[in-house]
Amino acid sequence: MSLLVVGSVAFDAIETPFGKTDKIVGGAASYISLATSYFTKGTKLVAVVGEDFPQEFIETLQNRGVSTEGLQIKQGEKSFFWSGKYHTDMNSRDTLITELNVLGNFDPIIPESYQDCEFLMLGNLTPAVQQTVINRLTKRPKLIVMDTMNFWMEIALDDLKKTISMVDVLTINDEEARQLSGEYSLVKAAAKIQAMGPKYLIIKKGENGALLFHGKEVFFAPALPLEEVFDPTGAGDTFAGGFIGYLAKTGDISFENMKNAIIYGSAMASFCVEKFGTERIMDLKEDELQARIQQFQKLVKFGALSF
Amino acid sequence: MSLLVVGSVAFDAIETPFGKTDKIVGGAASYISLATSYFTKGTKLVAVVGEDFPQEFIETLQNRGVSTEGLQIKQGEKSFFWSGKYHTDMNSRDTLITELNVLGNFDPIIPESYQDCEFLMLGNLTPAVQQTVINRLTKRPKLIVMDTMNFWMEIALDDLKKTISMVDVLTINDEEARQLSGEYSLVKAAAKIQAMGPKYLIIKKGENGALLFHGKEVFFAPALPLEEVFDPTGAGDTFAGGFIGYLAKTGDISFENMKNAIIYGSAMASFCVEKFGTERIMDLKEDELQARIQQFQKLVKFGALSF
Repeated sequence: MSLLVVGSVAFDAIETPFGKTDKIVGGAASYISLATSYFTKGTKLVAVVGEDFPQEFIETLQNRGVSTEGLQIKQGEKSFFWSGKYHTDMNSRDTLITELNVLGNFDPIIPESYQDCEFLMLGNLTPAVQQTVINRLTKRPKLIVMDTMNFWMEIALDDLKKTISMVDVLTINDEEARQLSGEYSLVKAAAKIQAMGPKYLIIKKGENGALLFHGKEVFFAPALPLEEVFDPTGAGDTFAGGFIGYLAKTGDISFENMKNAIIYGSAMASFCVEKFGTERIMDLKEDELQARIQQFQKLVKFGALSF
Repeated sequence: MSLLVVGSVAFDAIETPFGKTDKIVGGAASYISLATSYFTKGTKLVAVVGEDFPQEFIETLQNRGVSTEGLQIKQGEKSFFWSGKYHTDMNSRDTLITELNVLGNFDPIIPESYQDCEFLMLGNLTPAVQQTVINRLTKRPKLIVMDTMNFWMEIALDDLKKTISMVDVLTINDEEARQLSGEYSLVKAAAKIQAMGPKYLIIKKGENGALLFHGKEVFFAPALPLEEVFDPTGAGDTFAGGFIGYLAKTGDISFENMKNAIIYGSAMASFCVEKFGTERIMDLKEDELQARIQQFQKLVKFGALSF
């Protein structure tokens, strides 16, 4: 089924304990679209870049079946740019540079041909822009998934809460869940956040996996223990892309199927961190994907138990 | 099958964000023996206390089928005492008081009737004392599981490495695995630690679950997301007790069965943290245990997947 992806398409410059990059392609919607492209040929992208953005990456997306009709290219302007440096533990990072550029006044125009989308993935963006996207859709999608981050909790909490109230699934990390809810216990945090609107909450815990909450139900998906995490940038976006991509492929938005979708999201994210930027998820092979899914199944499988 | 447990039986005074206790019963072997008692009536305890230790707790152990023939009671001396205060996140704590008392010159005497034990659980103790226990057994147990902590890495690394080389399963937490191996990646750390001797390594990650490594194989068990973690003291010991208790009950020390054992260990630990000290694991009911195991099975279960 068709899937609308909205978010940043941008440049990043990244430094990790394993090396550093020049300006490379990044942005939430870049990672998300690449990830969804392994599940559906119906991905439709809404984003904005400057004239400095490489045509080559746009063609890569197109070749992977992503529609870029909704990708605005602003002549005479520059793409969003973020630069950051990860600490030794790779779980925390410092932002060195943020240049909003074209993202500063991003107007998310939805092409007419996108109006039939049944799935909507709102990558991390200004909450007001995310909200505009929802309001511009003539028919509410079957499922709206939204990612966000602590930054918006600090500078646009009211907008953020309004947008959160309009979506079905919210994905945030553990620290953000605590910040948004004011609860340290993730179980209590999940209850409070669900009361804000979303019927499903995914709490991402990086190398410690992810939790899916729905009412009183909870599902846990591990992250794959990796020899080396090379660059965590985009892992959360890739996870979200794998998650909604699988749901769009199967058309099944039940809680049971969301559990499966989280495993696919985790598998996609496990590839993402193995190289800098989007490199590792540009062209994954069928057998790599298959083997990775099997590793996840093996990782948590145990016998039938009773006391 | 019979199971020898060696470790501290002691007093703790604990402060958490939820309250504080006076001197209550604690110590690794107290938690371990209580946990193993749900799996086997063949637990045999070797430990030392002072004359200040409550007879009531010793009787509780006996009533739960734990042999206390190897529990030395030193007249005119005081039991080991530890006092600590947990930080808000409950993942870190400050030690306020440590009084070694009887533990300062603990000589682990193994009663003759204990010599047939097929399973040995070495709770956290001076590595030299743990080693003495192994050397005093006339027949090597079928399985030796050892717990330790960062403290011994700092003051008795050579002794510790020697003891580690003599055991089958080592249980440590993630920070300790990194410290012991000098590797940040837990996959790399696991390989290095297995090269020190133990064929199995369990890395405990608190609220983030536990990993079991064996050669190139890895298994992950989640922790149960809890509304409230009241007091994490003894959770690792209770986990170890549930783990080895289940192995002793089934008599099966295969990697596959260790996966099951880790789930039982995690279930036991999830009870432990719900109240201060040993309170919650003193008298668990059959149906509580059954329900908790089912929660674990449900927590990680997803469908049959393929790309």
